[in-house]
Amino acid sequence: MKNKIDKFDLQIMSVLAKNARINYRQLAELLNTTRQRVSRRLERLEREGVIKKYTIIPDFDRLGYIYVAIGISLKPGAPIEKIIETLKEDEEVKVIQRAIGYHQLIVHLVAPKNMKEIERKIHELSKKVEGLEGMDMSFVTDIVKFELV
Amino acid sequence: MKNKIDKFDLQIMSVLAKNARINYRQLAELLNTTRQRVSRRLERLEREGVIKKYTIIPDFDRLGYIYVAIGISLKPGAPIEKIIETLKEDEEVKVIQRAIGYHQLIVHLVAPKNMKEIERKIHELSKKVEGLEGMDMSFVTDIVKFELV
Repeated sequence: MKNKIDKFDLQIMSVLAKNARINYRQLAELLNTTRQRVSRRLERLEREGVIKKYTIIPDFDRLGYIYVAIGISLKPGAPIEKIIETLKEDEEVKVIQRAIGYHQLIVHLVAPKNMKEIERKIHELSKKVEGLEGMDMSFVTDIVKFELV
Repeated sequence: MKNKIDKFDLQIMSVLAKNARINYRQLAELLNTTRQRVSRRLERLEREGVIKKYTIIPDFDRLGYIYVAIGISLKPGAPIEKIIETLKEDEEVKVIQRAIGYHQLIVHLVAPKNMKEIERKIHELSKKVEGLEGMDMSFVTDIVKFELV
């Protein structure tokens, strides 16, 4: 059985959301506890998948990329599992979120700063999505905030 | 003047996008180079803001939260800088992306698993956005992939 998430778990994760590279010692100091307690708890959060991933937010502009957020609407009965499996393999597809509501799939992709190339990429993507109803595209110019916990 | 991003920078960032908590020694082994070269380069990427942030992706379901992605359309002339400053202060607003295209602002928020509470939260948000034209809401049920580099 999985443990219930408590306040201490949320405190650890909130610090890591701001700086995922902080070490056990610093974490313990910040949360006014011992290194052992922090490491034990963090290992559990990782093992149980409460923390799914440690990752980075880059400056896409500096990398020479354009970052596109695409909201995808699917026709009723579209094979969403199969679509996700196909998109997962695509190196340029950086984020895949499954959703209900206005969009059923949110996909983020990066492409070089070249509109012809982006057009090609989006055309390619649209062919990979069986039962595609529509795609709404936004070009992300800045990630102002990103702290999921 | 800022340095140009080279292949080695991208390799480092690609590893960190998969696991941001990897240490210098492991990074150096993976990339077949020295710990010194890795640490020097990484410090530069941080200093120059090419890596904007190290963060975590949690399992929202385990945290007891609902995760909502909101695409916002603004009326022409809406004060986007001011809107962003207001939203930044909101603890429940976890992600703010500025964009051009279909949406001009993408906001992610978390709320407890309580539809009345979510309704209240979204209503509150809509009042904070001066010049709001429309909001498209999707409830994220799973983050299948998240590796921005």
